[in-house]
Formats: sequence, C-alpha cells, structure tokens
Amino acid sequence: MSGKVYLVGSGPGDPELLTLKALRLLKSADVVLHDELTGPEILKLVPSSTLLRNVGKRGGRKNIRQQEIDTLLVQYALLDLQVVRLKGGDPLIFGRAGEEIEALRRANIEFEIVPGISAMLGAAAAVQMPLTHRAFSSSLVVLTGHSSPSTANGSELPDSPNEAWPKRISPGATVIVYMPGYEYAARSRQLIAAGLMPDTPCAIISKATTSDQQIHQTTLQNLHRAPIFPSPTILVIGEVVRFAQHASAAPEIASLAFSTNIPLAPFAQAQDSERPE
Amino acid sequence: MSGKVYLVGSGPGDPELLTLKALRLLKSADVVLHDELTGPEILKLVPSSTLLRNVGKRGGRKNIRQQEIDTLLVQYALLDLQVVRLKGGDPLIFGRAGEEIEALRRANIEFEIVPGISAMLGAAAAVQMPLTHRAFSSSLVVLTGHSSPSTANGSELPDSPNEAWPKRISPGATVIVYMPGYEYAARSRQLIAAGLMPDTPCAIISKATTSDQQIHQTTLQNLHRAPIFPSPTILVIGEVVRFAQHASAAPEIASLAFSTNIPLAPFAQAQDSERPE
Repeated sequence: MSGKVYLVGSGPGDPELLTLKALRLLKSADVVLHDELTGPEILKLVPSSTLLRNVGKRGGRKNIRQQEIDTLLVQYALLDLQVVRLKGGDPLIFGRAGEEIEALRRANIEFEIVPGISAMLGAAAAVQMPLTHRAFSSSLVVLTGHSSPSTANGSELPDSPNEAWPKRISPGATVIVYMPGYEYAARSRQLIAAGLMPDTPCAIISKATTSDQQIHQTTLQNLHRAPIFPSPTILVIGEVVRFAQHASAAPEIASLAFSTNIPLAPFAQAQDSERPE
Repeated sequence: MSGKVYLVGSGPGDPELLTLKALRLLKSADVVLHDELTGPEILKLVPSSTLLRNVGKRGGRKNIRQQEIDTLLVQYALLDLQVVRLKGGDPLIFGRAGEEIEALRRANIEFEIVPGISAMLGAAAAVQMPLTHRAFSSSLVVLTGHSSPSTANGSELPDSPNEAWPKRISPGATVIVYMPGYEYAARSRQLIAAGLMPDTPCAIISKATTSDQQIHQTTLQNLHRAPIFPSPTILVIGEVVRFAQHASAAPEIASLAFSTNIPLAPFAQAQDSERPE
C-alpha cells in the first residue's frame, strides 16, 4: 500500500449533502486536512483515531499558505498514508485545487478528486430557485468577488472590484458571485456597467443549507442597502431570483443524531467508540 | 401525513456520487419518477416495492411532455405519497425544475429540492481538471448546446447554434457547454466569433464518472475533427483543459456490491428483502 491523496468536496454545509464517496473516505482516511468552510457537523463524522488538521487560511491565526498545504499533502502521502484534503463546496470551483494537483503530479503522488455540491447548487436548492429556466435564463456566469484568489479560500474581507470580471455580461444570464464581500455598491455598479438592468432581481444567501441560513432579496440598484450577513455568502443576480423563497427559507436539516449515526458497510461494526461525543 | 415531492439530483452517473440525502429519499419514497440520464446502478438502489417510473423524454418512445410530468407529480402528491423526481446531475441546472416548481406551487404541494453533483463537476473531477485556476481562469460561463431547452432533458440531437448564446465571452473564462450536440464545426465558429482564441484547448468528455468514460482533447480550431462520443457529453473550453488527463481517465468506480449494500440509519434493519437482486 502506498499513500494516496483525495481532494474531496464537503458540500455547502448540511452533512446530508456529502456524497456517499466523501463519507466513505472520511471514515477510512489516516489524515484529514480541512479548511474553514467545513462545518463542525461534518468534522464529527471523522473517527477520533484519525489525524484531523485545520489548514484553513484563518486557522488559529497561523495563516498557512497554499504552498505549505501542498507540501503537507505530499509529505503525508510519502508516509504511505491515505490523505483526505477536504474543501468546502466543490474542490474544482474557486478551491485552488489546481495548485494542489500540480504539486501532487510533480511529486508523482497518486491522487483522486471527489466532487462536492458547490455553494451555488446548495444555495439555489435551499431557496427553491432554478439557476436556468426555459423562459428566463439559458446560461450561467460564475464569478468570484475576490480580486486576489489567494484569499479566496478563507477570509471574506471587503475588497475592490475584481479587474478580471467580464466587461460584458449577457442580460439573459444568471450571474453567481462566490465570496461577494460587502462592497455591495461597487459590485452593483460593476454589474450594471457590464450590461445588467438596474432592476434585475438579486439575492444574497448566507450559510445556505445550514440552520443559520438567511436570504435577502432585492434588486441590483438597491443592493447597497442589503444587510451584512455572516460568511459564507453567495450573490445571485437574474430573473430566476424571483423564484426564491422569502420566508421559511431554512430547509429541512439533518439532525446531528442522524449525521453521527450513519453506519457504512465497511465500518458498520463497533466504531462508535471511535466517534467524537 | 400529506404528500410531498422531492426534486432530487442523481449526480453524473457514479452511484457513489449520490448525496446521503438522495439515497435516504430513494430508499423511503413511495414513487420515483426518473429520466434517461439516471443510470441503472442508481435505479437498483430503489426498493422493489417502490413504484419506479421512467418519464424520460425518450422513455419507451412515449415522449412524455413536461406538462404531463408536472401533472403526475401533483397527482401522486395529492394521493398523499412521498414522490422523488430524480434528475441526472443537479435539478436546477438545465433540468427544467423551474416548471415543476411552478406547477407544485400552483397546486399548493409541499416540495423540497435536493442538489446533485452537476455534470461539469463530475466531469472535471473525473479528468482531474480544475474549472477555475488562479493563473488561468477566474470565471465560468455555462451554456447549453440546445437552442430549444424543451429537448434539453432527454435527447441529444444535433441542432443549429443557439441564438441565445452570449455574443462576447471573456477569453479568461472557462466555458462549459452542456449537451453540446455533434455540430462541432458550428460550435467552434460560434465560440471563436465570441472572442475565444482558435488555439484555446478544449475537451469533450463522454459518460463522465462511469466505467464507459471517454475524453478527447483538442483545440477549438480542430474541434470539428473530434470523434462522436455517446451521450451524455460535455464540452469544456479554456486553459484549464491542459490539466485534463489523457490516458486512464476512468476514475475509481464504486462496485455494484458496495452500491447496493449501504445501510442507512433509518433503514438499517431488515430491508434487504426489499432490494432488487
């Protein structure tokens, strides 16, 4: 047996939105390296005998840099360990997996990527809003609010509008902004300058699929009056936002009891003692 | 107990990429309505006592129309049944969930949406290709090859370039085309006319995350020479395609034995007799 690294998406927050494969790997890994976006309910699924390490950019103010994470992945794999690198949402969308893939290939480490429910899919499902619609939207434009993706995987500080944003956005598209930050007025001006109508509906969704989920619906021209919601947030702009549910937006959440009591075939026996209380 | 409808994504094909929630609902539903994109290995997870009905657009040449599906969902829910409407990938991206949501709200039927791993996430993970990258791509543009979304959820016939496609696409974006069809020359011309460079790398990925997965890598200007792969296919264009694996692209696939032997907490006892052989 040689070491192997799994880049695994943990989904938007609700532990029941993990894939079967992600859960199997979390149960069998030797080491799990996670970031800030992975919720405590998901981390509780990791057996207590597993080395669990927070490599989030805000983790204990240590500000682990991407290069250090790359090195950790390689080093653990060279020790013949099975390593899960757990990332919020999907690892391949604004997750800096590209750099980890490069590092693993350079070091000739075997690896596999396990997709996760990306934030936009979780948020849209939670507020019952289609992202495309035959009558209103035939395409998606997916952006990130951070001009420097080097901060994209951890903190959500306000920053200046992203110079890499498209100059023109077709008015028929649904626009999704990951990590939009809180400079709503600047974002709004930028999107209107790119061709979107000022009265286009938009919504900020905070902590989607968790019990703390919040949604604020407005229009682009009134976006600057939106409340400051806790991160992670996502901003969706387009006619499809009219579908979003205002009230009772919190979805059916899996109880913690359910989350910590899922027996998987290879681990069905006598593993309770290994689980955190 | 009153009836309820769950619009559930079945993911890209690999049964292990179902979410825990999707599996729980498949095990407990009274009725499962599925389309053509849901693979046989996933349908085997549905207990044999459950009413399983193919409402795919090609299902038995019956060409069930969307309106008929909407009516079925409402009728089953009015019979106080728990109904799963299972859709390939994620229900909210090119899945026509919008129309089903409208029908369910009009009829005052309780419903919930369960996201799934969308085809682009499955395909990118399977060929180890990030969709965004700090150095190469800071946004996604997601399109569908079908000019008429009314055929988007079933057949994959060649058709004329989609008039609703954006006139301009920023060269730094990763472009993803769902159901691209086989008129590669027309697609290529259209994307180059929208501003992409002729030598931009692109890949066609067929049946991603299944054991029949195939990938063909080329450039936009040579796309017209690409082979005709079986559907479902997805076309990805952008510098990130350089990351995709040519050879041995087939990922580790869950064995059928594993897929049919996952006990879930609420169904852990004595359900084996209900499972298909």
